[in-house]
Amino acid sequence: MDFQTTLKVKQQIIDEALDKYLPKEPSPQNNIFEAMRYSVFAGGKRLRPILMLAACEFAGGETERVLPFACAIEMIHTYSLIHDDLPAMDNDDYRRGKLTNHKVFGEGIAILAGDGLLNYAYELMLQSILQHPSQSQNATAAMYEIARASGVYGMIGGQVVDLDSEKKQIDSITLDFIHNYKTGALFIAAIRSGAILAGTEPETLKHLTSYAENIGLGFQITDDILDIIGDEKKLGKKVGSDQENQKATYPAFHGLNHSFERVNDLFQKGLAAIEHYGEKAQFFMDMAHYLVKREY
Amino acid sequence: MDFQTTLKVKQQIIDEALDKYLPKEPSPQNNIFEAMRYSVFAGGKRLRPILMLAACEFAGGETERVLPFACAIEMIHTYSLIHDDLPAMDNDDYRRGKLTNHKVFGEGIAILAGDGLLNYAYELMLQSILQHPSQSQNATAAMYEIARASGVYGMIGGQVVDLDSEKKQIDSITLDFIHNYKTGALFIAAIRSGAILAGTEPETLKHLTSYAENIGLGFQITDDILDIIGDEKKLGKKVGSDQENQKATYPAFHGLNHSFERVNDLFQKGLAAIEHYGEKAQFFMDMAHYLVKREY
Repeated sequence: MDFQTTLKVKQQIIDEALDKYLPKEPSPQNNIFEAMRYSVFAGGKRLRPILMLAACEFAGGETERVLPFACAIEMIHTYSLIHDDLPAMDNDDYRRGKLTNHKVFGEGIAILAGDGLLNYAYELMLQSILQHPSQSQNATAAMYEIARASGVYGMIGGQVVDLDSEKKQIDSITLDFIHNYKTGALFIAAIRSGAILAGTEPETLKHLTSYAENIGLGFQITDDILDIIGDEKKLGKKVGSDQENQKATYPAFHGLNHSFERVNDLFQKGLAAIEHYGEKAQFFMDMAHYLVKREY
Repeated sequence: MDFQTTLKVKQQIIDEALDKYLPKEPSPQNNIFEAMRYSVFAGGKRLRPILMLAACEFAGGETERVLPFACAIEMIHTYSLIHDDLPAMDNDDYRRGKLTNHKVFGEGIAILAGDGLLNYAYELMLQSILQHPSQSQNATAAMYEIARASGVYGMIGGQVVDLDSEKKQIDSITLDFIHNYKTGALFIAAIRSGAILAGTEPETLKHLTSYAENIGLGFQITDDILDIIGDEKKLGKKVGSDQENQKATYPAFHGLNHSFERVNDLFQKGLAAIEHYGEKAQFFMDMAHYLVKREY
């Protein structure tokens, strides 16, 4: 199977599992089920769950076993987008060409739909741990990896600093903090938790972590670059919004040329961390290309 | 020790543990640490964590072991209040005589402080499970009990229906749903999870659950009654706000007299569930009085 087909198959597996796990039965509160589903199925690329699946398989684990955790990380990612889009935060009316959650369901329900997805992610992982008691230690460690990366020492920490930095002059250390925490932490946790769940060797975990750190940061700087030079049609969103919102970005600090060099450097380092695995690491090599050397 | 002293001692234990667990170190994101602490230390009575502590002790468990879970449930309760107070929800400027979180820190940080507390509650419980691998099965089951009661099949489910019911005519089935889910679920989970963590016998769990269900509902109907006939000084908050906000309450449906009868009936049933334990159940008997037969 070529890379694009593999990617599609994995996306399909995730989408089916999300549909299976997310509540939908008729009930007094099904307003929130609808709101949660609306944003989960609003066109995400499923990068984090796909990386988790791949890391789990790489470390010898089973796809079936990792699915609740993979769906949980996608729910956490989605909740963070719903809350980020709120008027009190980024105040966005559209995401991926669709109305944002609060524009469809109102602010109150959007806040609760975010809360609901975050909490449900933990319910889902706990259910899975209780169903497989013999593997509970690895699974709990994987869950902790995800929880830590989602919280005030991870994604939420990055969102806070990002919010505090709006329309302010920030330094490049603060920019790195936002990059590493707001997006990087969950990206790295996706890969690490997949491998931990599979009971990985520490050496393998080290290599995968190094891959994740480099490609994760490369992915974000590429995002910043594409907001300047990207093609709106290929991207499916407006370019120039970072400059408009006076957001600090890597190119704004270090220039476009240096940004390209940095991305290339991160790409090479990411590959170097895993290339000695040869064919076994092919999907991660292709994924690095897909994430960093993209035009969309 | 008399009941009031026991209660104060338990409150003190919870407050000290909360102070120990909640982040406070200087860091780029310490704005959110401050916001989280502000609401956690804004004068809560610590009912849920105290009930959890008591249930754990009742079932033969250790206080030290249950503390991270007890603090986690208080963090979850606090996050729900922060989000409930937001302009898009109840739009309250004051709670327990203090400015609400968003009035002090702004809406964006208040949303994130709520998210941060919810997520941190899970981090804290997971850390504790990883530190005590031999008891992980009971602890994971206790954590699931809390997670389920906090989510769309518990508290959040109740918040959604409450929000949807504003300024609408609702029936008494919907009112029961809101009572049972918005407040009842977490109240019951506090007691059940404490006992489960201690490795309780199913029979004991059944009795404690029956106690929790009856006293939990009695507590809420008492809340509704006090909003009509309570003394503002003793309550520390304005009365009449339910009527003002056109909130459906138990007395509005069934009249004050019947509400008193119902509370008394629930109180008796709650006591009946545990009184055969004799002196061992004294704290729960006193607590029932404290929660249901109050003027504040």
